[in-house]
Amino acid sequence: MAPNQVKSFPSVPLKDELDIVIPTIRSLDFLEVWRPFFEPYHLIIVQDGDPTKVIKVPDGFDYDLYNRNDINRILGPKASCISFKDGGCRCFGFLVSKKKYIYTVDDDCFVAKDPNGKDINTVEQHLLNLKTPSTPFFFNTLYDPYREGADFVRGYPFSLREGVPTAVSHGLWLNIPDYDAPTQLVKPLERNTRYVDAVMTIPKGAFYPMCAMNLAFDRELIGPAMYFGLMGDGQPISRYDDMLAGWCSKLICDHLNLGVKTGLPYLWHSKASNPFVNLKKEYKGLFWQEEIIPFFQTLTLPKECDTAAKCYVELAKLIKEKLNHIDPYIVRLADAMITWIDAWEDFNPPAEAVPAVANAKKDAVPPKKSK
Amino acid sequence: MAPNQVKSFPSVPLKDELDIVIPTIRSLDFLEVWRPFFEPYHLIIVQDGDPTKVIKVPDGFDYDLYNRNDINRILGPKASCISFKDGGCRCFGFLVSKKKYIYTVDDDCFVAKDPNGKDINTVEQHLLNLKTPSTPFFFNTLYDPYREGADFVRGYPFSLREGVPTAVSHGLWLNIPDYDAPTQLVKPLERNTRYVDAVMTIPKGAFYPMCAMNLAFDRELIGPAMYFGLMGDGQPISRYDDMLAGWCSKLICDHLNLGVKTGLPYLWHSKASNPFVNLKKEYKGLFWQEEIIPFFQTLTLPKECDTAAKCYVELAKLIKEKLNHIDPYIVRLADAMITWIDAWEDFNPPAEAVPAVANAKKDAVPPKKSK
Repeated sequence: MAPNQVKSFPSVPLKDELDIVIPTIRSLDFLEVWRPFFEPYHLIIVQDGDPTKVIKVPDGFDYDLYNRNDINRILGPKASCISFKDGGCRCFGFLVSKKKYIYTVDDDCFVAKDPNGKDINTVEQHLLNLKTPSTPFFFNTLYDPYREGADFVRGYPFSLREGVPTAVSHGLWLNIPDYDAPTQLVKPLERNTRYVDAVMTIPKGAFYPMCAMNLAFDRELIGPAMYFGLMGDGQPISRYDDMLAGWCSKLICDHLNLGVKTGLPYLWHSKASNPFVNLKKEYKGLFWQEEIIPFFQTLTLPKECDTAAKCYVELAKLIKEKLNHIDPYIVRLADAMITWIDAWEDFNPPAEAVPAVANAKKDAVPPKKSK
Repeated sequence: MAPNQVKSFPSVPLKDELDIVIPTIRSLDFLEVWRPFFEPYHLIIVQDGDPTKVIKVPDGFDYDLYNRNDINRILGPKASCISFKDGGCRCFGFLVSKKKYIYTVDDDCFVAKDPNGKDINTVEQHLLNLKTPSTPFFFNTLYDPYREGADFVRGYPFSLREGVPTAVSHGLWLNIPDYDAPTQLVKPLERNTRYVDAVMTIPKGAFYPMCAMNLAFDRELIGPAMYFGLMGDGQPISRYDDMLAGWCSKLICDHLNLGVKTGLPYLWHSKASNPFVNLKKEYKGLFWQEEIIPFFQTLTLPKECDTAAKCYVELAKLIKEKLNHIDPYIVRLADAMITWIDAWEDFNPPAEAVPAVANAKKDAVPPKKSK
C-alpha cells in the first residue's frame, strides 16, 4: 500500500471482518455504553469461572458465549492450554473466531471521550491502525505518517515509506492506568488524564508491555502468537497472560517484518483492581520478567520460520530449553504453547493442508446463543 | 536518579548551564518573541555567509557573535571542517560553548502555543527532558514515565526503571512540518496542527531523522557527536547536516547507554523554504541515505570506545572505509569528522590530560560582542 493513499477510512465498519472477544465472570451490562460501536459486530464471550452461572447479555447483540464446559467439550484434552479463573481464557475466543481481525476488551472498560467531548469509537480506530501500514525500521518523529495531515519527515528513507502490514494495534486507557501492584500500592490515587493524540509504530527490536484491556490484532497474520498462557487456577502466576502474548507477538512480528502500533484509541478504565490481590497474583512475574525479557531481547528465530505458527513452535522450544531453570512451571507453559498451536491449527488449518479432523472440529463449534 | 523523584522542575532556569546556538544570515528580530525565555541565557550566534554583513541583535540579550572570519581565526586550518553557506555552521557554536547544555534553534522559528493558549517555553521543556532519565531498553506505553501523573506500566521491568542519562532532546514543530523537497512539492499546503502531548525515548537500536530546528543536547555527554558535517559551499550536498549528526549521535548514544528523547516542546515554524532550492541541495542525499542509513543500522562500535569522542573517531574511520565508494565526498567528510574531533578536543580537553595548547586556544576565543 503506497503512502498517502490511505488517508481516510471508509464508513463501512467492516463488520464481517472483525470479532469482539470479551472474557467475563459477570453479566455484561457494560455493553450498553458500547452499543453504538459494538452492535454491528459479532461478539465472542468467554465466560470464566463457574460455568453454571448465568451471564446476561443485553438484547440486540449478536454473540456466541462459551463457558468452561464448552471449552472442554470443544477442545477436548487440548483444553488444558486454556487458563481457568484468569482473563487469559480470552485466547479461546481468538482461536474459534473465523474473522480476520480481533478486538478484545475488558468488561470494566467504557467509552472514553476525545478532547472535543466526542465518544471514541475504539473499533474504528483499531481497524484504521490495522489497515494502514506500520513503519518499524525507522522512527518517524511526526508519528503515524499515514494519518491525515501527517507524512514522513525530511530524512526518512524513501524505500521504507511503503511500510509493512500492521499485525497489532495496542490501545490505551484513560482514568485508571495499567499499573502493577507495587505501583498501585504506592500511587493509589494516580489517574491517567492525558490524551496523547498519536499512534506510533514500536520500532523493530524494541519490546513493550502489551496490555489486553484494549487490544486489536490481525488473526491471519499473528493469531497463533496471541496465546495468553497458563495463568490463574492451578498456576503459580497470573496477570502475565497479556505480557507473555506481548513478548511473543512482538518477537514474531519483528521476525516476520510485521508492524505493532500503540497509542490511540483510548477507552475509559473504570476501576482499579485490588492491589493486594494483584500482588499475590503477579509477584513471581516481577522476578521472572527480569530474566525473561532480556532473554526475548536477544532471541533470533531461524529463517525457515515463515509463519507465526512456525515461529511460535520454535519459540516454545527455546523457552523450554533456555528458561526451564526458572521454575518447573516454565516447562508446563512451553508444553501448553505447543498444545495451543495444535489446537489453533485444528481450527485454523494452514491453507496448504486442511486436515479433515480440523474441519470436523470446526463444524462442531456450536454457538451457545446467537441473536 | 530514581524514578518518581523527578516530577517537578525547579523554577531556576539553569542559566549558567545552557547556551543557545543560532546560525543566521540575517538580523535577529525573531529574538523579540523569544525574549521572555531566551533573555536569561547566553546566546552564541554563528553568522553564516558574508562576514561583512552586519547582523543586528535586539538589545538586552547576552551574546557572542562569530562570523566566518572569526571561525577561521579561532580554528586556523581546522576551520575547514565547519560548513560555509549552510546552517551546519552552527556546530562551531557547540564547540566553543563552555556550558553543559546546548539549545539550538532556527531563526525562522517562533514561540508556539500549547492547547491551552499558553506560550511554550521550549528551553524549560528541553531542560526537563535532559535532566530526567531516558528509557531506551523497553518501551513505556504511557510515554515518559517520569512526567507528573505518569509512571511505568504493568510489565515494565523494575531493574530498568532508573533509566539512563538523557543526552538528546529533539523538539517538534507546529505549522510548517520538516519535509524533504519531494514531499514539499507534493503537499505544498500541508501544515502540522496536531499537538501531541508526549515526550518519549527512542528505543535503543532505532534510528530517527534528527532535525536541528528545535534541538537540545548535553554537550558533556554527546557534544563530539554533534558535528554537522561538510555541507553547502563547495560541497555536493546540503540539508543533511542535522541528519548526519542524528545518525552519529544516536549510534553513539546507543553504544554508551545514553538516551534520546523526542516530542515536546513544540515551536512555531513560520515559513517553508523553497522546495526547488531544497531539491537541488538535498537530492544526492535522497539517494545516499538509502545506503548510509542501513549501514548505520548494522554498525557496532568496539567496547574500548567509552567516550563520545572515541566513538566518533572510530565511526569516521568506518565511514571512510565502508562508504567511500558512494562518492569521493565521503572521504572528505570522514576526514573532516576527524578534524572536528581534533578541534573539539582543543577546546574541550578531556579531563585526564589537558594539553596546554588547548587551554591557550580556549582563552583565545574572543567574544565579539557581549552585553
